[in-house]
Formats: sequence, structure tokens, C-alpha cells
Amino acid sequence: MQVSEMVHHMAQKAKEAARGLGTLSRGVKDQIILRAAELLRERQRDILTANERDVKVAKAQAYAPAFIDRLMLSDKVFDSMTKGLQEVAALPDPVGAVTGMWVRPNGLKVGRQRIPLGVIGFIYESRPNVTLDAAALCLKSGNAVILKGGKEALHSNLALAQVVQDALAEAGAPAAAVQVIPSVAREATLELLKQDELVDLIIPRGGEGLIRFVAEHSRIPVLKHYKGVCHIFVDESADLDMAEEVCYNAKVQRPGVCNAMETMLVHEAVTPKFLPRMLGRFRQARVELRGCSRTREIDPQVIPAQEADWGAEFLDLILAVKVVPDLDAALDHIAQYSSNHTEAIITGDYDRSQRFLKEVDSSVVLVNASTRFNDGGELGLGAEIGINTSKLHAFGPMGLEELTTTKFIVYGDGQIRT
Amino acid sequence: MQVSEMVHHMAQKAKEAARGLGTLSRGVKDQIILRAAELLRERQRDILTANERDVKVAKAQAYAPAFIDRLMLSDKVFDSMTKGLQEVAALPDPVGAVTGMWVRPNGLKVGRQRIPLGVIGFIYESRPNVTLDAAALCLKSGNAVILKGGKEALHSNLALAQVVQDALAEAGAPAAAVQVIPSVAREATLELLKQDELVDLIIPRGGEGLIRFVAEHSRIPVLKHYKGVCHIFVDESADLDMAEEVCYNAKVQRPGVCNAMETMLVHEAVTPKFLPRMLGRFRQARVELRGCSRTREIDPQVIPAQEADWGAEFLDLILAVKVVPDLDAALDHIAQYSSNHTEAIITGDYDRSQRFLKEVDSSVVLVNASTRFNDGGELGLGAEIGINTSKLHAFGPMGLEELTTTKFIVYGDGQIRT
Repeated sequence: MQVSEMVHHMAQKAKEAARGLGTLSRGVKDQIILRAAELLRERQRDILTANERDVKVAKAQAYAPAFIDRLMLSDKVFDSMTKGLQEVAALPDPVGAVTGMWVRPNGLKVGRQRIPLGVIGFIYESRPNVTLDAAALCLKSGNAVILKGGKEALHSNLALAQVVQDALAEAGAPAAAVQVIPSVAREATLELLKQDELVDLIIPRGGEGLIRFVAEHSRIPVLKHYKGVCHIFVDESADLDMAEEVCYNAKVQRPGVCNAMETMLVHEAVTPKFLPRMLGRFRQARVELRGCSRTREIDPQVIPAQEADWGAEFLDLILAVKVVPDLDAALDHIAQYSSNHTEAIITGDYDRSQRFLKEVDSSVVLVNASTRFNDGGELGLGAEIGINTSKLHAFGPMGLEELTTTKFIVYGDGQIRT
Repeated sequence: MQVSEMVHHMAQKAKEAARGLGTLSRGVKDQIILRAAELLRERQRDILTANERDVKVAKAQAYAPAFIDRLMLSDKVFDSMTKGLQEVAALPDPVGAVTGMWVRPNGLKVGRQRIPLGVIGFIYESRPNVTLDAAALCLKSGNAVILKGGKEALHSNLALAQVVQDALAEAGAPAAAVQVIPSVAREATLELLKQDELVDLIIPRGGEGLIRFVAEHSRIPVLKHYKGVCHIFVDESADLDMAEEVCYNAKVQRPGVCNAMETMLVHEAVTPKFLPRMLGRFRQARVELRGCSRTREIDPQVIPAQEADWGAEFLDLILAVKVVPDLDAALDHIAQYSSNHTEAIITGDYDRSQRFLKEVDSSVVLVNASTRFNDGGELGLGAEIGINTSKLHAFGPMGLEELTTTKFIVYGDGQIRT
């Protein structure tokens, strides 16, 4: 069978499976997820053998050590995968919840009820543990999922998905609810992106290159973010100790992630007091500083920022720093350069906190807290399958509820339209 | 300036306008909409002159009388446009509402707040009154809108939009919040559909041909329905008087719309009692009946249904009729042929009502009521800009809330991530 034919056939099976999944009770879904956690332990040796096969090829092809590290399934990763499955089982089931119901003048009772989206295509890069995360979140929210992982992790992904498929089959549920595309061909991804009659949503997770490729070729709606260019504005009324701790955390705690700060904006009134100590602390943490001319007046060691540094996602210990005359200038800078991902203000001023919350058009807007909190778990969504910076469907981190939609249910007693 | 350059420039102006619109108070937005209603009256003569120009050309080109009727702005249409604007002004403003707020263990207060989507591209066919409907709904929900109407209504649409633009300018709001593309070239539509960096959502309204064209060429998310193939299942436990009234209403009251019934499914146990009287009544209303073999056993005058009749959107006084052995067969038929738009069951049985509500995967599912109620106004959304049968963002009729999204707002006091 050709790759394209195979992918189309998988999408058909997923659509059939989705019809049954939408009506599974929470009890059955949790039982499947917890059984998968047990099987994961029982089969650890087999899964490690599959993983070693992937790792061996990656080493032979001289991939970078950091890449191989992400690919390798250690005992620690098994612990975290098991815990991940148990946590998803413990989360409330969004499906079936009626989010509101009202009565019309003619007596019709109209409500909105949560239902699964249907079939989700999930396209990701190297970490094989994402296979189980995504499978569990889709299953718990009643969706069938077609997984297309990185080509280097294929055997690991197939072995991990088998665990969920067997748990599904044991419970009498359709194993096609979770499928891994058993091909490394790019053609397979392209074919998946064409199945707009069968697949309801595509979620890509990985580098900007992967995500742009998916968005450009998909006929199916894609929820995604290209990058996180997160700003913190330190206002003149900020508690400067707080500003220092929050900015340091946002840049240094984990610089390689999308919710790390990339540009710090500082109100000109506090530059003499704030910038020397803040920049000194960043320098101690080996952060490369690229600043505007006014930043460099205070600290001439700062590298002159180029236009391309504003709006850059460094994903590294690099920070752009700009002095601004007031909140309006900070808001203008953010409107021009932000990626609509996460922005924060550090302020003691009530009106400015409210203006910032209102006027910044980003998926998460914070007052006096680190940008690193843009994460489904940290915000209280339980878990997250990704972050979306387009406005449609779910702006920001997506948890279980964001993997559902609502339909209208109507209870009548013979009403007709006149 | 070339058409493509002009459309791109309009999209840029819309994006700039959107930034200010999102923070306008309800009072100002309502004032603009009510002022537009006044200006509409004051300029009725000028608008009629523009409309007569369109109508004259359409008549010269020998368009069908029904088409010219839709194009023509009568006194009645002016009344209805005025009333439409006043009704939108009276609706609550969704923007700014916090739909929930919770406290995290670290003290962070996390909430979701409604915000406008940004810039909406609205593409529609002949009725010029839709121009004002769409402009008012987008403005009230804080969105900028770019309108591309039917080529036959261009002068009417420009004159109507001018009314809103002047009301915007009088209030000091950006007139670019509402723009009509002043070109009839298909190239203009294609260019609009490419503005994925500037336009957040496309809503097409019109025939299936227009909608497929838009969906196939858009790089921007499209909320749409291709067609409404609505089913009613008359269960064996149905109150047959109620079933007759509801089915008659769903087919005959306005057969040319997307929420009219196209297929009636009848439980075999009630066919002898129900079908003769129901089919007789349809025949009196000149409904052409196309039935399965079992329907024809009861009434041999019924035309044999072809495979293409199941799943057909007749938009006319034509009905497909099928006898089914039980609820499962009805659910299977609906799963295979429905357009996920609207389905209803007529039943007196509690369990079957619950199964139907749970298992039917359509945007509106009704018990003992006419499919004709799938309409934003009828369901209590206040007004509607369209119906969406894809699952993302808003499944079903879209009112003001569905023209917004939510962002996360976070109140902290110095929290950092550890």
C-alpha cells in the first residue's frame, strides 16, 4: 500500500473510532489510561529495546548529544511518563458537561454541552514521551488521535502507542483511537494535512520550521504558536526587588523555552537605580545583553542592539534591553514586536496594571509575575497539549477543555417556528 | 494602485483600527451604532439612488426576479436595517467580561477575559442589508471588518458602509473599522484570503459554491457551513400529532433555508398510522416526496428515492423519506448523511431522547422541536453572523460572544517559577 493511501485509511479508521469514543464514560476512559500506565511498566524492557534501536541509528548519524538525550528513554523518563498518565486519569472529564442552559420565551430549553472535537492530528519532533502525553489527553477528552512523531523516534513511538492500543482493546474500545503513522516519509505528513473531511484539528509541536511547514500545507485548522517573544515592562512604580527577581526568573530559570523573557523594557525613571544591579546579575548568570543606546549610557559593556534583536526569540541566555519613556511607549513596542504569547508588567500603580491587562493583545498577560507561568499546568488547566497564539478556538495554553467544543442541545415539547 | 496592493493596504488599516476598537467602551460603541441608524434614515434618498444604479444594471443583465428582489432596498428593508442596528446596540457587550477566575496554590489569581478576535473578513452575496448587519455585529464585538459583498450590490454596499464610517468618525473612532472592498474583481477576494498576518477570521455567507471557493483559497481560518442536510426522526413513541406539526413546520414554513428538514426518518412501528396523514399533508403543500421502498409500500405515489437523495440539500419543497427499524438505524443514517448542522427527534421515550442528544454529532440537536430553531436569534444569542459546522471555535450559530476569544489575565505579587 502506498504511504498516501495508508494515511487516508488511518484517518478513516480514526473517524470511525471517534464516533464510539465520544460516548465512553469517564470511568472507562480512566481505566484505559491507568491500564496503559501498568502496561508501560510491564513492557519497559521491550520499549527500551525499541528505543535503543532508535538511539543507535541517531548516534551512527552523529546527531548532537542534546538531541540524543531527548530521544533516550531513561528510568526517569519512564517515571515521568507513568506519573503523566496517572495525572491525566485524575483530571475531570470535560465531555458531557453542560456549560449553560436557558429558557426561551416559547418554552424551549437551550443548553450548550461539551463534546470532543473528533479526530486530532498531532505532529511533533524528537521526544518519544510526548506520544503518551498526547495520546492520554486526546483519549481523556474523547478524541481519536493520529500521531506523527520525529523520524528518529519511530520505533520508540510505535512501542509506546502499542501500550495504549492494548489497553483500549482490553476495555473493548477501538484501538484505532490512538494510531502512530508507521512511516518517516514527509509524504505521510503531507497526506495527513489533506484529510480535511476526516480530521478536525492539527496540533504541531516543535521548532518554528516544523510549525511553518504544517501551517503552510494544511487544509485542516491548525492550532499553534510559531514563537514566544515575551516582554516584561518594569514600570517606574515597580518594587525594584520584585522586578529583579521576576526578570531574573523569566530569563534565566529555563532560557530555552517559549515563555522565557526575550526583551526587558525599563521605564526611564528607574534606569539609574534598577539597570546597574539587574544587568550585573544577568552578567553573573552569563546572559549576553543587547541594549538600546540609553541602556548603553548606563552600562557601556552592553552590546548595541540591532533592529533584528527586537522581536527575536533567542531561546538562549541572550536578552534585549530597552529604556522607554512611559507605559505608552512600552505598549507600542509590545504591539509592534510581540508574538502575542506572554507579556508582563511589574508595577505598583493600579491604573497602569489595568491598562496593561486591557491593552496587551497576548494570550497570557501578567501583573507582577514571571512570564514562565504561561503553561497549562501552572495556570490550573491540569495539563497542556500545546499553546495557541492564533485567536481562534483557544487563545493560549490548551488543556482538556480546549480539546473539546460545544454543541447546542434543545429540549422542547412540540415548538414550531412561526 | 493595483487591486492586490489596495486590499493589502486595507487589511493594514483594519489591523491598526482594531487596536483601538478593542478598548472602546460599550457606551461609545452603542452610540456609534445608534448614530448609524439615524444617518441611515437621513441618507435614505442617496442610498436608494446608489441601489437603483445596482438594480438597473442587474435588470439590464437579465438577472432572475428573485435575485433582483433580494438586491432591492425597499422601505421595508430600511425599517428592518434600522431595527437591526437598534437591536445590536441593545445587546450586552461581550468584550471585557471575565468568564472565570481562580486562585493557584502560589497565590496567583488566574482569569479568562473576553477580547475581540481582531480583524474579520466577511464575504457575502447579494443582499446589501447584510452589510449593516455584519458591520454592527463586528463593531459591537470590538472587531474591525473588511466587507466583500456581491459584485451586483457594490454601490449599495459602499453607500451603506459610509453611514457607519461617518458615525465612527463623528465619535473619533477609526473609520477603517468598517471597510468595503471597492472592487468587483475575484482577485480582490483572493488577496483578502492571503492576509493571514493581518486578518484573524474569514466568514463567508452565501451559496455552497462561494463557500467552497473561500475555504479552498484561504490561508486564514474560515468559519462556515457548506450546507444543512437536516433530519427529523419520528420515533415509535412519538406523539404523532406533535410529529406532524413539527415535521410540517420544518419542511414547509421556509423550505429555502439551511435549517429546513431535508430527510424525514420514520420508525417502522408508526408508519401505518403516521405516514398516510403526514404524506397527504405534505402533498397538499405541494412537497415532492422521494421515499425508500417501504415508504412506497404505504404510498405508491411517492417517487423512488435515489442514493443521491440521501444527503441532498434540496432547499426546496422536496423531501426524502425513509422508514427505519429502530433508533440505531436512524443514528447510523444520520452519522452517514448528515451535514452536522441540525437534527431532531420526536419521541415520548426518555432514554431515546437522551441517546439522541448524546450521540448525534450536530451543532444543534433538538428533542420535540422543529429544526428551524437553529438560528442565533431563536436560540437566544441575540443575533447571528452565521452558522459554523466545523468543530473549531464555535460549533453552530455564532452571535456576539462567538466573535470574541478569551485571553488569560494573571494577578500576582512577585511570583516566580521554581
